[in-house]
Amino acid sequence: MSSPVAMAEYQAERRQLIAEDRSGRLDYKKGPLSEQEALADKVIREVRAAEASSIWSREYEGIPHPFPGMEFLTGRSIIVQTKLFEILGKMPKGALLHAHLDATVNVSVLLEIAMKYPAMHVRASTALNATNIDSILPQLSPLPQELRTAGGTALTDVNYTSNTWIPLTKARETFDSKLGGPEGFDRWITAALIINPTEAYVTHNTVKKIWQKFQSTFAVGAGLVRYEPIHKDYIREFILSSIADGISYVEPRISFLRDLRPFIAADGKTLVPHREIMKGFQDVVNQVKAELKEQGREDEFIGARIIYSTIRFITPSELEWYLRDCISLKKEFPDLIAGFDLVGPEDELKPLTYYLEPLLKFREMQKEAGVSEIPFIFHGGETLGDGTEADMNLYDAILLGTKRIGHGFSLIKHPKLMQICKERGIAIEVCPISNEILRLTSSMHMHPLPALLNHGIPVALCSDDPSAFGNMGLTFDYFQVLAASEVTGLVQLGEMAKDSINFSSMDPEEKERALTAWQKRWDVFLEYATKEGQDFLTQFKSEVNVHDEYKPDNSVIRQQYGSRKWMYKKTMRTEWMMMRQCNVLR
Amino acid sequence: MSSPVAMAEYQAERRQLIAEDRSGRLDYKKGPLSEQEALADKVIREVRAAEASSIWSREYEGIPHPFPGMEFLTGRSIIVQTKLFEILGKMPKGALLHAHLDATVNVSVLLEIAMKYPAMHVRASTALNATNIDSILPQLSPLPQELRTAGGTALTDVNYTSNTWIPLTKARETFDSKLGGPEGFDRWITAALIINPTEAYVTHNTVKKIWQKFQSTFAVGAGLVRYEPIHKDYIREFILSSIADGISYVEPRISFLRDLRPFIAADGKTLVPHREIMKGFQDVVNQVKAELKEQGREDEFIGARIIYSTIRFITPSELEWYLRDCISLKKEFPDLIAGFDLVGPEDELKPLTYYLEPLLKFREMQKEAGVSEIPFIFHGGETLGDGTEADMNLYDAILLGTKRIGHGFSLIKHPKLMQICKERGIAIEVCPISNEILRLTSSMHMHPLPALLNHGIPVALCSDDPSAFGNMGLTFDYFQVLAASEVTGLVQLGEMAKDSINFSSMDPEEKERALTAWQKRWDVFLEYATKEGQDFLTQFKSEVNVHDEYKPDNSVIRQQYGSRKWMYKKTMRTEWMMMRQCNVLR
Repeated sequence: MSSPVAMAEYQAERRQLIAEDRSGRLDYKKGPLSEQEALADKVIREVRAAEASSIWSREYEGIPHPFPGMEFLTGRSIIVQTKLFEILGKMPKGALLHAHLDATVNVSVLLEIAMKYPAMHVRASTALNATNIDSILPQLSPLPQELRTAGGTALTDVNYTSNTWIPLTKARETFDSKLGGPEGFDRWITAALIINPTEAYVTHNTVKKIWQKFQSTFAVGAGLVRYEPIHKDYIREFILSSIADGISYVEPRISFLRDLRPFIAADGKTLVPHREIMKGFQDVVNQVKAELKEQGREDEFIGARIIYSTIRFITPSELEWYLRDCISLKKEFPDLIAGFDLVGPEDELKPLTYYLEPLLKFREMQKEAGVSEIPFIFHGGETLGDGTEADMNLYDAILLGTKRIGHGFSLIKHPKLMQICKERGIAIEVCPISNEILRLTSSMHMHPLPALLNHGIPVALCSDDPSAFGNMGLTFDYFQVLAASEVTGLVQLGEMAKDSINFSSMDPEEKERALTAWQKRWDVFLEYATKEGQDFLTQFKSEVNVHDEYKPDNSVIRQQYGSRKWMYKKTMRTEWMMMRQCNVLR
Repeated sequence: MSSPVAMAEYQAERRQLIAEDRSGRLDYKKGPLSEQEALADKVIREVRAAEASSIWSREYEGIPHPFPGMEFLTGRSIIVQTKLFEILGKMPKGALLHAHLDATVNVSVLLEIAMKYPAMHVRASTALNATNIDSILPQLSPLPQELRTAGGTALTDVNYTSNTWIPLTKARETFDSKLGGPEGFDRWITAALIINPTEAYVTHNTVKKIWQKFQSTFAVGAGLVRYEPIHKDYIREFILSSIADGISYVEPRISFLRDLRPFIAADGKTLVPHREIMKGFQDVVNQVKAELKEQGREDEFIGARIIYSTIRFITPSELEWYLRDCISLKKEFPDLIAGFDLVGPEDELKPLTYYLEPLLKFREMQKEAGVSEIPFIFHGGETLGDGTEADMNLYDAILLGTKRIGHGFSLIKHPKLMQICKERGIAIEVCPISNEILRLTSSMHMHPLPALLNHGIPVALCSDDPSAFGNMGLTFDYFQVLAASEVTGLVQLGEMAKDSINFSSMDPEEKERALTAWQKRWDVFLEYATKEGQDFLTQFKSEVNVHDEYKPDNSVIRQQYGSRKWMYKKTMRTEWMMMRQCNVLR
């Protein structure tokens, strides 16, 4: 027998080692928990374990291999049935720091909004039928009064003339019932604006291919979203749905592309200047704030800023125009412009080095214009590449002084850059579900997030493009992170939410207000989560049967992937029997 | 214009940052390269780029999304056609430090060996037909003389009596031609001993499920491999094929399971004591050495040691028996026993903490027995879990003083443990292809290896279970690592090969001999690789056409994933046209 002393020493050393290893984590840095925090965290871990061994361990039609943290698009229908998801839905989540405005509103809501505007038209390259409907994209656009049509022939009519514009409502009403009628029309439009599981996991199952589909959702959607009257409704809906999800501040990116993706005015023809877009955004924000104040809910929404973005396929001299445009908007809307970014698929488009010339003089340009600093908030390392241009963007983002890093998926490969991020407080805008759907990771379990957390890298969880992915709000992303770990619990999520406020572009006073408001709501949430979780567990334990084996005290294996030891045993038993039968014969 | 000075300063700072970031890498640590090294490294990078844009950019029947570093089981047929693979085949690879002996020999070779022994029999639970053949596993076993049969009825005959033993050769000869005849028989046996792409990527596409299949390959294979006469041939074949692949030292694990998977003697019934297995292994090694010496090739093979292993489902008191057994073997074969390990699926079986009691006194037991130290060489962190028992095994492996870590897939999540591995020179036995097939990573691009290399963690590339995965030798694993990176080149591979010798269990004199021999072969290899690569590139450039766009000086994107910018352009063009058509109408 090894002596009890040796064992006790070992265990002490082990605890010490684990503590050192995790010392960079927010939940470890936080220090001792309050009784309420500790209890809520414990209850939520038990709920997670209970659901891992029950709802995640069943067989589902059309969901090949369910497990917590699985591919989002196939797992979503299970996620929304969980108690964990229900509870997280109520969590105050702080700031949303990475989302592309054009992809933030639920597609069915967008369609409902669009139907209100007679200017909105749709067309197709040929008459739609059961054979071609899956491969033909809708083209959507507002039209000026003089070009609007009555839309006599349905899109699904064999006599439909290729590329004839039809009013959106009309096209919907007249959609052939064989193709599903109006609901079939909605499905057709929706399919063009979202990524479906077959695309992500079968037909477009590489980073390269899924980006093609992903980009086409923006191309199709712009026709709706960038019609100014819709745009205002869209911003409002984005903010309200964020608030409903517990988000109290948003910092979306708007991609400005003056020629390729202009904003169209109510008349269906005039191009809207960028300052009008800013103005419209500000109006909506102020209006929402006023409404909330009236309802005594002003703590639920602190505000919003915009990260001015353009797409990294333009020339350096074109970029200079956008930099100047951004500066002039900063001058007019100093509290609205949070930073500048270059967006688009990093693996496909131009690296930051291509734009060094203009980027290096951006600060100078700002000084000349007399505006306060506009930090870069660059996308960087949204790639699987090792030493590719997209991966190397991380060096340039940091050298150029980026305030945060969008994605930073490949950061884990860069020890020196990780150290710099820690030292300078450069937060990584981590988008778990986006990364998975865009095929950088196959499930949450392969995501570098846990590594980043343990290495003490500042992180904010973000949704990126929820309308295309279906991860509206931040609840889904928080869920995936919580479900796929045995280390991360509610306390860690809370600290991350708090950090999202710290790393936002709010000014110090706003931050303080946001943090105070967050803490108040967090305390209420902890009580709710504890109560809700405990009720669930009581009910759950009373219902446990042989199929839903519940063993919260057992190996974390079962908590993680559900009960599977029996399968191993079965395999071993088979082998054992084979050997035994063999012996019996001898 | 930003000043040329500012730009020059930026570029200098950038170079400095990259150098610091990569300072832990072996290729950076190595210092200035010789002319030959630099040239070979450059040529191989060009070959990689050329093939990324040609052979990897074509469409293949039955290979959905080809790219360099892709899923091994579907990509293999492309890999073997590449020049890169051909060249790497000749590379001297140093030591193989992680392989399970039972899964090291090509299945068709194993079958050929097995056919030589009349004791070998096979049976099935029912007569095989086209419907059930895919779901019925062969049971294989040597039988004692008195139980051997003539095997009148074929396995595929409807009159076959369930579980009747048939001599292997007879079963093969009489296999119904409708099921492929003798080749059909080979396919049936082979399918039970390997993992096929459908299993890995469709039907068993989770860690949990693929392990079930994987374990069954061992269960079926043991009946062949653990028949002592076959076992000796098997060891010989393993060593010879390793040498043919450029491996000069092997350190396989043998899983000892005295009751469940015993070794059977030539008579088909006597159990072979473990010391006889050791003796047999030693005999084969010595014989091979003698043969090579005779041929003047002694530099090609320095030797072999065994890591005594057992499976982590036994009880702690059973483990004590195995620890004692290991010690007694160490006493008799001091130069043969390299270490002790516990193997099997970490997510399923017992964690190291379960065995703390016996493991903590292993050193004491060794002292009492008066043997030289037997280090632990533990599997650890072969998991996607974050804080699961399998992930936590890493803490215990290190606390228990492990010499190396098998897999360490989750090590990247543990900053403190990474630091310890660096400081203490605990090398990680990284098995890229194994990890991918066993679903810890979806492709090489999601593997943590590049991160480990950049963080300066010592690493040895290993094949794990090549007979089940089809990655015989080390060439395939080196290929995958090289193909999926733009940082790693030939020089880095060479340094890793050298390190595999440094981190082996050879004694200092052997290591020195191995390193000297390796260097000599490496110099020859560099010349060969340069010449072969240059010839290929000359030929390649002369054949380039529009389909095989070759742009070695262009963005690394194309080098990595093949030409895809045109696809993006197509998407953008579509959008552009949509917008333009819209403008035209106005």
